[in-house]
Amino acid sequence: MHRTKVRIVEDALDANNTIARANRADFDRAGVTVVNLMSAPGAGKTSLLERVAGEVPGVRVGVLEGDVQGSIDAERLAALHIPVTQLNTDPSFGGECHLDANMVRSALAALPLAEIDLLVIENVGNLVCPAEFRVGEDVRVMVSSVTEGEDKPLKYPLMFRTCDLVLVNKIDLLAHLDYDLDRFLYNLDQVHPDVPRMLLSARTGEGVEAWREWLADLALRSPQGAPA
Amino acid sequence: MHRTKVRIVEDALDANNTIARANRADFDRAGVTVVNLMSAPGAGKTSLLERVAGEVPGVRVGVLEGDVQGSIDAERLAALHIPVTQLNTDPSFGGECHLDANMVRSALAALPLAEIDLLVIENVGNLVCPAEFRVGEDVRVMVSSVTEGEDKPLKYPLMFRTCDLVLVNKIDLLAHLDYDLDRFLYNLDQVHPDVPRMLLSARTGEGVEAWREWLADLALRSPQGAPA
Repeated sequence: MHRTKVRIVEDALDANNTIARANRADFDRAGVTVVNLMSAPGAGKTSLLERVAGEVPGVRVGVLEGDVQGSIDAERLAALHIPVTQLNTDPSFGGECHLDANMVRSALAALPLAEIDLLVIENVGNLVCPAEFRVGEDVRVMVSSVTEGEDKPLKYPLMFRTCDLVLVNKIDLLAHLDYDLDRFLYNLDQVHPDVPRMLLSARTGEGVEAWREWLADLALRSPQGAPA
Repeated sequence: MHRTKVRIVEDALDANNTIARANRADFDRAGVTVVNLMSAPGAGKTSLLERVAGEVPGVRVGVLEGDVQGSIDAERLAALHIPVTQLNTDPSFGGECHLDANMVRSALAALPLAEIDLLVIENVGNLVCPAEFRVGEDVRVMVSSVTEGEDKPLKYPLMFRTCDLVLVNKIDLLAHLDYDLDRFLYNLDQVHPDVPRMLLSARTGEGVEAWREWLADLALRSPQGAPA
């Protein structure tokens, strides 16, 4: 029974990857670079987007906002006058805890791909399942807040291992926490040595300029040239 | 296709509930009251247990520690000289993002039920799926950290709606955050009016005494008398 369950999961992930590749081909044809932005609930994904989305130099940014329910974050981002499309994962009891490639595919027609250069897909707040499902992204960025503790790379290794950039957020709070930043970075290197990382604070703006430049550099490469 | 998916999900939840009832019957027979403790990653479940688990007056506490991988939290709690059993959800790629009734059932034989009065099941850090799966608990307690923002009850309503107590943790950081506690409590009342809530800080110990007393009161009632 256990073996059967593993096979069903693998089949589902294979099917997801096939659709993710189709999404990515469509994004490439439209010349749109895609970021899959992930984190635990409340780590600051939306706040970090608010800081940069309207002002990446030379790059038109759009957001696909994934939530179980509601449109609180989409409304925050729409106030920046950038195109925002809401995707809710709750067709039934409880809702899905992650976006998958098929959900993103269902939103393709609603995305203004001709009007943007960079699409940020803000995933559901969760450190487990979003890491398992590619959605057609060029790169994966994750946010880890210093309030969550230093042990998170060891407890959620797949998420930290499969991302292309780690944003360490809320560093304005470091003076008020028993958080050992060096230990976090050591744990991060245990699961993903040398992954690029940036220390920043969406609240104070410290470090945000580097995150904006990283997005600009990413978008100004062709999608075909971006990391797989 | 959509309707079929909903039915499969409902069938799976029905099967889970059947096993959860069997677990609960076994816990009742052993005279053990069971708490399902849930939160986002890094909200402070383990730290709040460290504060109380060894010293609930007149109550022998045990912990079933749920994690995707590893045993970091179990080792922290074992240092308090209470019985701790580790349950990992990662038999395959990525791991499950929640505990379900069958996983808890598989751990029953390893639990020292004759030696404890209160079992705290520390769930995987996640605000979505753990709320959908009963595991045989008498009550559900969730931790919401003030660092996560005031909007979480609106974004993860099932979790906040189905719990019996909300622990609002990390209140020592309130002076350093743009967090409106009244707005959080208002949002909480929108999805679960009058649910008991406690403000506390695992770091400073503020408010922890009320949490310890709540656990003592719960365990000293018979399991049959606890809320369903």
